[in-house]
Amino acid sequence: MAKVFDAAEVVKHTSADDCWVILYNTVYDVTEFLPSHPGGTKIILKLAGRDATEEYDPIHPPGTLEENLKPEAKLGTVDPATLPKPNAGETEKVKIAAEPPGMQSLLNLDEIEEVATKQMSKKGWAYYYSAADDLISKKLNNLVYKQILLRPRIFVDCTRCDTSTTLLGHKVGTPLYVSPSAMARLAHPHGEHGIAQGISQFGALQIVSNNASMTQAQIVDGSAPGQIFGWQIYVQNDRKKSEVQLARINKMSDKYKFICLTLDAPVPGKRELDEKAKDEPSSVSAAVTVGDSAKRPGGGGIGQQLFFGTASDLTWKTTLPWLAKNSPLPIVLKGLQTHEDAYLAMQYAPQVKAIILSNHGGRALDTAPPAVHTLLEIRKYCPEVFSRLEVWVDGGIKRGTDVVKALCLGARGVGIGRAALFGLGAGGTDGVRRTFEILQAEIEACMRLLGAEKIDDLGPKFINSRAVERDIYDGHPGLENVGMWAKANL
Amino acid sequence: MAKVFDAAEVVKHTSADDCWVILYNTVYDVTEFLPSHPGGTKIILKLAGRDATEEYDPIHPPGTLEENLKPEAKLGTVDPATLPKPNAGETEKVKIAAEPPGMQSLLNLDEIEEVATKQMSKKGWAYYYSAADDLISKKLNNLVYKQILLRPRIFVDCTRCDTSTTLLGHKVGTPLYVSPSAMARLAHPHGEHGIAQGISQFGALQIVSNNASMTQAQIVDGSAPGQIFGWQIYVQNDRKKSEVQLARINKMSDKYKFICLTLDAPVPGKRELDEKAKDEPSSVSAAVTVGDSAKRPGGGGIGQQLFFGTASDLTWKTTLPWLAKNSPLPIVLKGLQTHEDAYLAMQYAPQVKAIILSNHGGRALDTAPPAVHTLLEIRKYCPEVFSRLEVWVDGGIKRGTDVVKALCLGARGVGIGRAALFGLGAGGTDGVRRTFEILQAEIEACMRLLGAEKIDDLGPKFINSRAVERDIYDGHPGLENVGMWAKANL
Amino acid sequence: MAKVFDAAEVVKHTSADDCWVILYNTVYDVTEFLPSHPGGTKIILKLAGRDATEEYDPIHPPGTLEENLKPEAKLGTVDPATLPKPNAGETEKVKIAAEPPGMQSLLNLDEIEEVATKQMSKKGWAYYYSAADDLISKKLNNLVYKQILLRPRIFVDCTRCDTSTTLLGHKVGTPLYVSPSAMARLAHPHGEHGIAQGISQFGALQIVSNNASMTQAQIVDGSAPGQIFGWQIYVQNDRKKSEVQLARINKMSDKYKFICLTLDAPVPGKRELDEKAKDEPSSVSAAVTVGDSAKRPGGGGIGQQLFFGTASDLTWKTTLPWLAKNSPLPIVLKGLQTHEDAYLAMQYAPQVKAIILSNHGGRALDTAPPAVHTLLEIRKYCPEVFSRLEVWVDGGIKRGTDVVKALCLGARGVGIGRAALFGLGAGGTDGVRRTFEILQAEIEACMRLLGAEKIDDLGPKFINSRAVERDIYDGHPGLENVGMWAKANL
Amino acid sequence: MAKVFDAAEVVKHTSADDCWVILYNTVYDVTEFLPSHPGGTKIILKLAGRDATEEYDPIHPPGTLEENLKPEAKLGTVDPATLPKPNAGETEKVKIAAEPPGMQSLLNLDEIEEVATKQMSKKGWAYYYSAADDLISKKLNNLVYKQILLRPRIFVDCTRCDTSTTLLGHKVGTPLYVSPSAMARLAHPHGEHGIAQGISQFGALQIVSNNASMTQAQIVDGSAPGQIFGWQIYVQNDRKKSEVQLARINKMSDKYKFICLTLDAPVPGKRELDEKAKDEPSSVSAAVTVGDSAKRPGGGGIGQQLFFGTASDLTWKTTLPWLAKNSPLPIVLKGLQTHEDAYLAMQYAPQVKAIILSNHGGRALDTAPPAVHTLLEIRKYCPEVFSRLEVWVDGGIKRGTDVVKALCLGARGVGIGRAALFGLGAGGTDGVRRTFEILQAEIEACMRLLGAEKIDDLGPKFINSRAVERDIYDGHPGLENVGMWAKANL
Repeated sequence: MAKVFDAAEVVKHTSADDCWVILYNTVYDVTEFLPSHPGGTKIILKLAGRDATEEYDPIHPPGTLEENLKPEAKLGTVDPATLPKPNAGETEKVKIAAEPPGMQSLLNLDEIEEVATKQMSKKGWAYYYSAADDLISKKLNNLVYKQILLRPRIFVDCTRCDTSTTLLGHKVGTPLYVSPSAMARLAHPHGEHGIAQGISQFGALQIVSNNASMTQAQIVDGSAPGQIFGWQIYVQNDRKKSEVQLARINKMSDKYKFICLTLDAPVPGKRELDEKAKDEPSSVSAAVTVGDSAKRPGGGGIGQQLFFGTASDLTWKTTLPWLAKNSPLPIVLKGLQTHEDAYLAMQYAPQVKAIILSNHGGRALDTAPPAVHTLLEIRKYCPEVFSRLEVWVDGGIKRGTDVVKALCLGARGVGIGRAALFGLGAGGTDGVRRTFEILQAEIEACMRLLGAEKIDDLGPKFINSRAVERDIYDGHPGLENVGMWAKANL
Repeated sequence: MAKVFDAAEVVKHTSADDCWVILYNTVYDVTEFLPSHPGGTKIILKLAGRDATEEYDPIHPPGTLEENLKPEAKLGTVDPATLPKPNAGETEKVKIAAEPPGMQSLLNLDEIEEVATKQMSKKGWAYYYSAADDLISKKLNNLVYKQILLRPRIFVDCTRCDTSTTLLGHKVGTPLYVSPSAMARLAHPHGEHGIAQGISQFGALQIVSNNASMTQAQIVDGSAPGQIFGWQIYVQNDRKKSEVQLARINKMSDKYKFICLTLDAPVPGKRELDEKAKDEPSSVSAAVTVGDSAKRPGGGGIGQQLFFGTASDLTWKTTLPWLAKNSPLPIVLKGLQTHEDAYLAMQYAPQVKAIILSNHGGRALDTAPPAVHTLLEIRKYCPEVFSRLEVWVDGGIKRGTDVVKALCLGARGVGIGRAALFGLGAGGTDGVRRTFEILQAEIEACMRLLGAEKIDDLGPKFINSRAVERDIYDGHPGLENVGMWAKANL
Repeated sequence: MAKVFDAAEVVKHTSADDCWVILYNTVYDVTEFLPSHPGGTKIILKLAGRDATEEYDPIHPPGTLEENLKPEAKLGTVDPATLPKPNAGETEKVKIAAEPPGMQSLLNLDEIEEVATKQMSKKGWAYYYSAADDLISKKLNNLVYKQILLRPRIFVDCTRCDTSTTLLGHKVGTPLYVSPSAMARLAHPHGEHGIAQGISQFGALQIVSNNASMTQAQIVDGSAPGQIFGWQIYVQNDRKKSEVQLARINKMSDKYKFICLTLDAPVPGKRELDEKAKDEPSSVSAAVTVGDSAKRPGGGGIGQQLFFGTASDLTWKTTLPWLAKNSPLPIVLKGLQTHEDAYLAMQYAPQVKAIILSNHGGRALDTAPPAVHTLLEIRKYCPEVFSRLEVWVDGGIKRGTDVVKALCLGARGVGIGRAALFGLGAGGTDGVRRTFEILQAEIEACMRLLGAEKIDDLGPKFINSRAVERDIYDGHPGLENVGMWAKANL
Repeated sequence: MAKVFDAAEVVKHTSADDCWVILYNTVYDVTEFLPSHPGGTKIILKLAGRDATEEYDPIHPPGTLEENLKPEAKLGTVDPATLPKPNAGETEKVKIAAEPPGMQSLLNLDEIEEVATKQMSKKGWAYYYSAADDLISKKLNNLVYKQILLRPRIFVDCTRCDTSTTLLGHKVGTPLYVSPSAMARLAHPHGEHGIAQGISQFGALQIVSNNASMTQAQIVDGSAPGQIFGWQIYVQNDRKKSEVQLARINKMSDKYKFICLTLDAPVPGKRELDEKAKDEPSSVSAAVTVGDSAKRPGGGGIGQQLFFGTASDLTWKTTLPWLAKNSPLPIVLKGLQTHEDAYLAMQYAPQVKAIILSNHGGRALDTAPPAVHTLLEIRKYCPEVFSRLEVWVDGGIKRGTDVVKALCLGARGVGIGRAALFGLGAGGTDGVRRTFEILQAEIEACMRLLGAEKIDDLGPKFINSRAVERDIYDGHPGLENVGMWAKANL
């Protein structure tokens, strides 16, 4: 029979040499595990000696404890009566907000985000809302769609409207898909599974984050026939770990149809809002930078958890062959931001089947270009990419018209990240469903009003993107490339 | 002798199988009519069992009851003493606002709108003010005029100034006309007739909405000799209904000189402000989208009333011949937003005599182009349109200078929609008159200061539209059209 | 001996048939004069029967009564004891504002305007501050200077700096001059004479308004040796009146060196702020439009006073010869806003010696181009104008850098209007002096930092005006001129 | 033994003929020194007769008294008991602000500036924060970086990142350097020495101001091995003074490696914020202009102190040879704002080894171009400059991405001025260290996310600067140069 501890006993073990924590009423000795914690040692020490369930739960999928701790680390249970009463004013807690309004009363994504902002914990909100530096790319991602005008045609029979299409050869009900984003349970207990359920009726695809807060099996559990998923990988410095993960996905290829390799955040961006929220004991944060932690401003080690162990040495020549060896699934490369990289990616077809133009929701490098810029660059400099690869985009989608504009420019899939999470935060599965319901209705209304019946009907003739075209990269004609000047003789 | 009911008796009949309502102190059994109500069943059921006059009156022209109900549906009268007292704080009611200021004290259209906003019911205001999505097109409609600079010439005798012109060969006192807009009685009991009276002295033309709140005969009643009208048609799925309407207009061709076919809203735009106001029992609303009502966000059926039964399958090849068969009147096509459609319309002259460049006041598809863009497109790509068709524009007019700029770019008629309704809302017929008085004075001052005596003197030399020209559609030179890429071999 | 009236007696004569007013304690019968009052009949009737001195004084130069009334109109004097006590809270009165701060403590023109706004009467402020419609041109006049960047050169000896130049061959200490503006005594009792005194030490030129509130002789009284003036004419419908005025100026040609003919306001602009202030009994206002007064919105006759009798039929071919016949002085044409008119003006050299590019401070036609646009147009399309005529500009000057930029683009003189009046309003003669002191110091600092010693050194190489150049008129290349389309066969 | 004075005795000597002041408890007779005070006579007279230590200390390096006063000027000491008590509410005093937050909690430069604003005296803050006129150049300096987009490449091994480079052949740890800025002790007692210490661990270069508040020897005291400095010279009218200074620097060439000659402020700019703060008795201020002080608005003489005696007659042909004669150190020219001057500077290599593109932080001439404009101009018109001279830039740096963008465009060094001073103001040496820590971390994160390992890898391919390129000077094609028109025959 398991030993029962008083909280007062547990609280004595708070050093790096002797560190206990309480999780789900069980007492663990995590001393040995400390050095290998992906989030760093410090964050655990902050929680040492007390009940860390609230911080631990929403960001660790089930099985994490079992996978990482030896059986003998489990010391016993805690006597609940001895635990301190929760502080009524505790800011860390998920706010017991006023009951959210009925999802059907919400008319657009901004209203849903507003409700989510009230429902979610400050920390969770900060993590989702934040972006790099001054949020310039985040805002530009959306603004650039507003700068594109539509060109509706008249006298076209618009009785029928069909948003179905194919992604990687799979039939989907809509070009909209859910981008990979970490730890959905920070938004709502329904987590990634709630997202899967919410988008089910729309036939939409979902890419599951490498940092999901539920297991891959849990997420797809109960999904609709034909509903498909991709799995995002952040390659680990310890390649073996990644290989184990790939092997697990390979076995679920009835649901997981591709591997999405994220490339736009080999090191973490500087998300100050997120960083500000870090003082609350939590393992959610993004660091200012990698490298020598002594030089690292602000983070104090906490902020780097999610990136801990992530490889920053991926290359075209080494990573793709390694992936080929470890998974038969097609590869979708995420995070391309230049036509040059799109052109390079094309050389790796058919292993690479699609590319996602993305600046990581503005969360990696501030003033990185929005996907629309890259889309226009490709159209201008290497349109053949469109015939060799599927081109997907994400970032900044707020309206059905935004989706349609991306499709007109050649995108085949259009991802939403924060919008799905805010939908989840606002109302769990129902909130996600409402988010898609709104976007789908807006997409259909837009297509009808344009005079387009099918996704394939969409093309550049339906949009006027001059206001954006004049801002895309043009190779600096008339400016000599002096990148090498430093080698000249002074 | 008609039976007299207690209100308490009427209130028992509130189901879809047994539905009574009180209108103008008469009790009707509308059970049989329910399924064919253009606004849907739900909206009537919300009002079932009670006095619906206040909701019914401002949006149904006289004769509607007689046209739609069998004589036996009229059950008797209600004993007024048994009706509940009106709720003093009732929001649905037209506000008994402070007495409006004298119309002559108002100096511009913004001031008139401000007064109207205070005088009108919230619901009526929301319906007029609202536009699609984020109001981008609505705002751009106006902004684009502000971006055009004028080029006044000096040393020109400007003693005389004449704003008269012709529209479709009819002499008018001004190029300004009133655009078709639904249900003017929501603004003021004077309704569409009040508009007709208010513009009478200026010799201005008026296009009467298919959804007017008064009959076509009422509206033109007492109009000045030579005052002319057009009639707007929304073609119904049940073509017979439209044919009956056309036959009625044909008989009034002394006043109604043309048919205006609106094409820029084959399905309703998403007007969220209007949608927000819908919870108040009313049949005024715009739906998020058409189609499967189960998937329809927010609207719950109410929002689609005005579009209920409207055909979305109109085409160049089928609709124009059908119109020719049913009316000898010339056709004005409303809602063109591309030069391509202007070019197509030209092929249908002389049945089609004019086109109206319009994005439906920004109410249909957000980020659709303002009329000025389309005007500039036509000038650039197919200026021959101007010699084959009259080109009218609407949207965004706030100042006489706006009107003059449109005329300089080749517009022959310039429509105002909301401005006329807000004039009506501010002061009934007097408010409409003041609106036109201000605009006319501003147009004349502008022409004199430019050095133009007659409408025909106006031309592009009087304006500098570079700031707008660089934003118009240019066919994406340098961007390959990949609209068909999806069919290529992946 | 003059009769002495009780105020109670005077107040009985308030009709168009029998109208008395009290001015400077004298009682006049103005019945016969009523129909010929430039400001209209109504405005006098509003003041009939009472002491109108406060309204009359700041806007009529001395001698006006003598010039316009027969001797017998002077009935006698009023017994001051019988006059009503002035109302303490009277809004019409010049506010007894807090003592203004010392002029030397004010550092820029905005600060001076701020003080003037507090010191002046609301009506006077509204008259000066106001501009046409939405103030777009007024704001653009200033903004356009901010959009031009300077290009300072280094390693240039800037010990010396000389702002002197010549205007029409006359030596002046600075290219800055005072633009003609009406009724300076509305700002301060020092009036136009105060302006002349304030600018005296800078060797600056002043153009005296046709609507000055002091006589031409009063204004130049005590001016410095070599200080010169121009006189602005608004040609009257009754040319004889103008001829008398010209004859008077011709006799003062030791001081008045040229005639400035204002052409950018042949009819008044719509200055709503000014119009709003009109309800206070005053003859200061600007009308919405000319013509049929029954159609005139808002103004009710008051607003047109200053333009009453002003000719709107001036032309190149008739007006310049008439001027030549009536004055030997050179002509400066004010209000050109297109290169076409600059080119035309050049044909009339040498009678015409200079042109002033001006949109009347944004007060005539809103969205008319700023002078900088016209300057750039001339440089682009007919630079020979610069060698045949002097080109002066006004509008929007707030900083010495604005002045230098205009000079770099080819302007020879740079006028300030509101700035001089606000200087006067802030501190009378001292305020005007301070205004010029600041601008002169800023001009000098700018020239030194650019590396320019003399006015003639300035040129386009010192500025980067690309942000403005792309907005100037370009003749609509690619857009066919359809100004005449209406005559084509429909 | 030194005489001891009562404060009451000292206070009697306050005239230009008999002027005493108390400094560091010593009484001085400064009557003879008055006329030669660089800050002018007035400022001393304001402090005459009292203890001026608080005003004197932060802006005069030690040794100033000894250098400028004869021994007999030292009259004795003051009896501290007789001095008036400091006024508790004295605004002139450095605010005893709340204890500043820990530097590590500050995440970006804006937060540091915010803390500094609270910690510093109002006068010191105003001096640092202020810029010329309307702060347009100051704001543009920063905005222009935000308008440049980055172009991150993917699949690049970014494990390593090295920001080291060379400046003038000297190895430095970072391209970031500290720009010369006056009187650092106004920010914090650590002064310029605190800056040197704060940047030491980053291997950064520092340019010491000619108006430093500590001696050159004090500043470099205790600097790290290999840490290097430059010395800024403002050439004095009395060249002998400058020659003495140069001789002193020549002897410290183990630390001071070059002379930086500032050329963008031969006369002071108009910094109104600074001017506003001048009424407080202080010798810190900037004048509106130079020249005849009677005409000088506002300044009253105080504002010109720092520029007092500064030569405004420097030229390429005279100043560089003079410098060559007086120092063997290489020359860095600061303040170039046109490609023309960059091209000229190139002719003076190798004496001139680097140029600094700078508009003096927007403090000299408002609307002068940001360094990025000049960088683009050079790339466009004379890229050979980059191979003959090092090109450094300063102005507007707020983020590591700003630094990287400048480097991509060809800059070799990137200076920060206000940011270092605000770092100092926020937390002394620690604050400076934190400022560099943040910027360095941001630079590294940016380089990694771009896929650049070394400074030399950076080049234009990593940025999209179209939004800026279209605004740079282009020589006014199509606009004839009429700079000489005034000489033509009118």
